[in-house]
Amino acid sequence: MRQSQLFTKTRREAPQGEVSKNAQLLIRAGYVHKEMAGAYTYLLLGHRVLQKIIGVIRDEMNKIGGQEVFMTSLQDPELWAKTGRWSDEAVDIWFKSQLKAGGDVGLAWSHEEPLTSLMREHISSYRDLPRYVYQFQTKFRNEMRAKSGIMRTREFIMKDLYSFSTTEADFRKFYELCAQAYLAIFNRVGIGEQTYRTFASGGSFSKFSDEFQTVSEAGEDFIYVDEGKRIAVNKEVYNPEVLTELGLDKNNLKEMKAIEVGNIFPLGTRFSDALGLTYKDEEGKEHPVIMGCYGIGPGRLMGTIVETLSDDKGIVWPKSIAPFQVHLIELSNGNADVHNEAQELYRELTEAGVEVLWDDRDARAGEKFADSDLIGIPLRVVVSEKTLAAGKFECTQRSSGKTEYMSLPDLTESLAHAE
Amino acid sequence: MRQSQLFTKTRREAPQGEVSKNAQLLIRAGYVHKEMAGAYTYLLLGHRVLQKIIGVIRDEMNKIGGQEVFMTSLQDPELWAKTGRWSDEAVDIWFKSQLKAGGDVGLAWSHEEPLTSLMREHISSYRDLPRYVYQFQTKFRNEMRAKSGIMRTREFIMKDLYSFSTTEADFRKFYELCAQAYLAIFNRVGIGEQTYRTFASGGSFSKFSDEFQTVSEAGEDFIYVDEGKRIAVNKEVYNPEVLTELGLDKNNLKEMKAIEVGNIFPLGTRFSDALGLTYKDEEGKEHPVIMGCYGIGPGRLMGTIVETLSDDKGIVWPKSIAPFQVHLIELSNGNADVHNEAQELYRELTEAGVEVLWDDRDARAGEKFADSDLIGIPLRVVVSEKTLAAGKFECTQRSSGKTEYMSLPDLTESLAHAE
Repeated sequence: MRQSQLFTKTRREAPQGEVSKNAQLLIRAGYVHKEMAGAYTYLLLGHRVLQKIIGVIRDEMNKIGGQEVFMTSLQDPELWAKTGRWSDEAVDIWFKSQLKAGGDVGLAWSHEEPLTSLMREHISSYRDLPRYVYQFQTKFRNEMRAKSGIMRTREFIMKDLYSFSTTEADFRKFYELCAQAYLAIFNRVGIGEQTYRTFASGGSFSKFSDEFQTVSEAGEDFIYVDEGKRIAVNKEVYNPEVLTELGLDKNNLKEMKAIEVGNIFPLGTRFSDALGLTYKDEEGKEHPVIMGCYGIGPGRLMGTIVETLSDDKGIVWPKSIAPFQVHLIELSNGNADVHNEAQELYRELTEAGVEVLWDDRDARAGEKFADSDLIGIPLRVVVSEKTLAAGKFECTQRSSGKTEYMSLPDLTESLAHAE
Repeated sequence: MRQSQLFTKTRREAPQGEVSKNAQLLIRAGYVHKEMAGAYTYLLLGHRVLQKIIGVIRDEMNKIGGQEVFMTSLQDPELWAKTGRWSDEAVDIWFKSQLKAGGDVGLAWSHEEPLTSLMREHISSYRDLPRYVYQFQTKFRNEMRAKSGIMRTREFIMKDLYSFSTTEADFRKFYELCAQAYLAIFNRVGIGEQTYRTFASGGSFSKFSDEFQTVSEAGEDFIYVDEGKRIAVNKEVYNPEVLTELGLDKNNLKEMKAIEVGNIFPLGTRFSDALGLTYKDEEGKEHPVIMGCYGIGPGRLMGTIVETLSDDKGIVWPKSIAPFQVHLIELSNGNADVHNEAQELYRELTEAGVEVLWDDRDARAGEKFADSDLIGIPLRVVVSEKTLAAGKFECTQRSSGKTEYMSLPDLTESLAHAE
C-alpha cells in the first residue's frame, strides 16, 4: 500500500487523558481511535493487526477441532433468568435495553446460555459428543471504569470456545489440548517467552482454573512465577496447599506483575443442568453434558504485545501479526531514478506476496524514519541516491536495529525465511 | 470436513412461526439458529457462507480503493446530538442503554457521525482527499417488526463504505465506480441476472439515490424494470418526469416485486457541515468535504440468494459462496473398500485445495441424499459399491441435477474450471 494514500496520519502527542502506553502508541501511530471511554475503533493498520491475531487464534482452534460460529449480541432475558444470571444483582456488567416492540433485551457479555440452549437441538446421544464450538464476537461489558487502553474496554471482540463432553476424563483431555494450543498462540504472536500458564481461582464455576499471564509492568495481576518449570500461581490462590499440589517450592518463585491474556476453566454441569442439555449413554441413560470455557481477547492480546515489545521509539511488531512485513522508505527528494527504483521494488515485493507499506510521501527523511519507528513494521528498506549508487538496499530490522545492505534476491530470500 | 463431526443436524420441519422461505431452509439445513425475533446465530455452515460473501464484497471494495476499519457499536450521544440524530423523535430505531459509570449510550444503527468525526483528525488539505473507508460491522436497529427471516433483523453485519471527496464531480466519479463494483458483487454471488440498478428516493439526504434490487416474490419493494436497459425505477419515485430523465418508456417497463440488496447515496455536506469536516484547497480556502454512503448487508444478501436460487428440495449455492464445493456421499454400508475409497478421495481433493464435506455418517442413502439436497453444496460425488465397480465417481450438479461419471483426474480438472 502507498502511504500517501493511507487515510490515517501519525501524531506527535497522544490525546489528553490517555495514560496507558498501548493506547498512546496505537493512537499516535494511527492504529486505533478512541471513540469514548472504553470503546476504540480499529483503523486500517489496527484492523490488519487484529485480523492477523484472529487468524492465528482461528488456526489453532481449528487444529484442535473447533467449529466456528457467530452468535448474536442481543440476548433474551428469559434464557438468562434460567441460570440466574439476568439480574443486575447477580451480574453487574450488563448493558440492557428495551425492544420497541416491548420487552427487555440484553447485550451479551458472554455466551454460555445461548450456546448451551442451542446445542440442545444438536446433542442427544453420546455419539454427538464431544463438540467444540467457538466464535470471534463482540462482547459488551458495562464496567464502572474502563482503563488500560485497549486492554480493558466496554466493547471488545472475544474468542470464546465452549467444549461439550460426556465424561470428566474426556473434558480434561480437551482442556489440556486447549492449554497447549493457547501456549502455541502466544508463541506465534511473539510473547511466548513472557507468558506463563498460571494456576488461578475458578470463580463461581469450579475450584480452580488456568490463566495465561504475560509478565508486564502494565499488568493488573500479581503472579508467582517458577521460571524453570514455566508455570505460575495467581496471588489470589497463593497458599501452602496449592504450592504442594503443584509441586512448587516457595523459594523458587518470583512475584511479578502480569496481564491476563487468556483463561480456560471448567464449567462442569452448571449450564447443562440449568438449561437441560443432556445426552443418552450406550444404555439409554440420560446425563448432563460436561462443559468448559476457553477465552482470549484478540484486542487485549494486541495491547499486551504493544506493552511488552515496544521501545522508546515506538511499536515493534513480530512478523506474524505486523500490518505489513516491509516498510519501504523512498528518499527520492525529486530524483526520478530513486522514485522509479522504489516503485520497481514495491512491484517486485508485492508480486512475491510480501505485504509492503511504501512511504512515497513528499516528506523529510527524519519524519519518515520517526514514523517508521513509531509504526513498527519488522523490516525497513530504504531506497535513496546512496543505495542506488551502492546497488543494494539498506535493510534495518525494527526489533534489533541491525542494518544490512541487500540485493533484491537476498532481500526476497531473507523475507521468505524470516520468523 | 467429516459430516459425522459437524455439530449441527438437519431437521425436517422449520420451527413454528418462521414463515419466510430463507429462514425455514437455513434453519432446517443447520445454517442459522433463531435466537429471538430478529436475531439469528450463524452456525458453522452459515458462518462459512457469510464469510465468503464478505470476502467477495471486501475484494471489490479493496479494488476501488476502499480502506477497511472496524468501528465501535457503543455511541456517544453528544456526537449524534450535533447532527440532530440522537432523539427518538428523529430516529425511531435506536437501542439505547446507560453506562454504569453514568450517562446514556447508543448502539450504532449507522456510522456517519463517528466516522465523519474521526476523519477530522486525518483530513485537512485537498491532498488528503479523496478517501474511501469501509467496514463490516454489526448494526443494531430497533425495528417494530422483525420479518423476512435473515433479511430484516434487529442485529446484522453491514458493509458500509463512506466516500470523502473535494468536488461533486470527483464524488460522482467514485459513485459510478462503486455502482459498477456493486454489480460485480451481485454477479459474483450468483444473482447478477436478477438484480437491477434501481433509481430511488434519496430520503432525507438528497433528491435521489440508487438501490440494487433483486427480483423476488419475497421482496417488500415494487420496482418497474426495463429488462433491455437493465435498469429499474422504484415505485416511490415512479412518475413521468423521472421516466423522462432516465430516458425510459413506460411501455417497456414491468412491475416486479424485489428485495433491496444494496444502496448507494449522496450525503452531500450534511455531516461534514454539522461536524466540521473541512479541507483547504490549493489557495488555502476552507470547504466542507463532500460525502457519500454505500451499503450492503451480507446477511440479507445470503437470504436473498436462498430466496432466489433454492428449489423445492432445498438450497442451491453458487460455487463462489458455497460452504463447501463438494459434498462427498459415502454409501459404504459396511463395505470397507467403499469406505477406503471415500477416504482416499477426501484426502486427494482436500490436498488439492477443494473444500469437501464428507458424509461419513452411518445413515441410509435416502437420508443422505435428502440432506445433501437441503444443504445445497454445488457438486455431489457419490462413492458406492456401484461406483467402485465402474471405476468412476457419480457426480451430480446440485443446480441442474445433471449426473456424470468421472475419474479422479476428470473430477479435479472440472472442479478447477467450474464457475
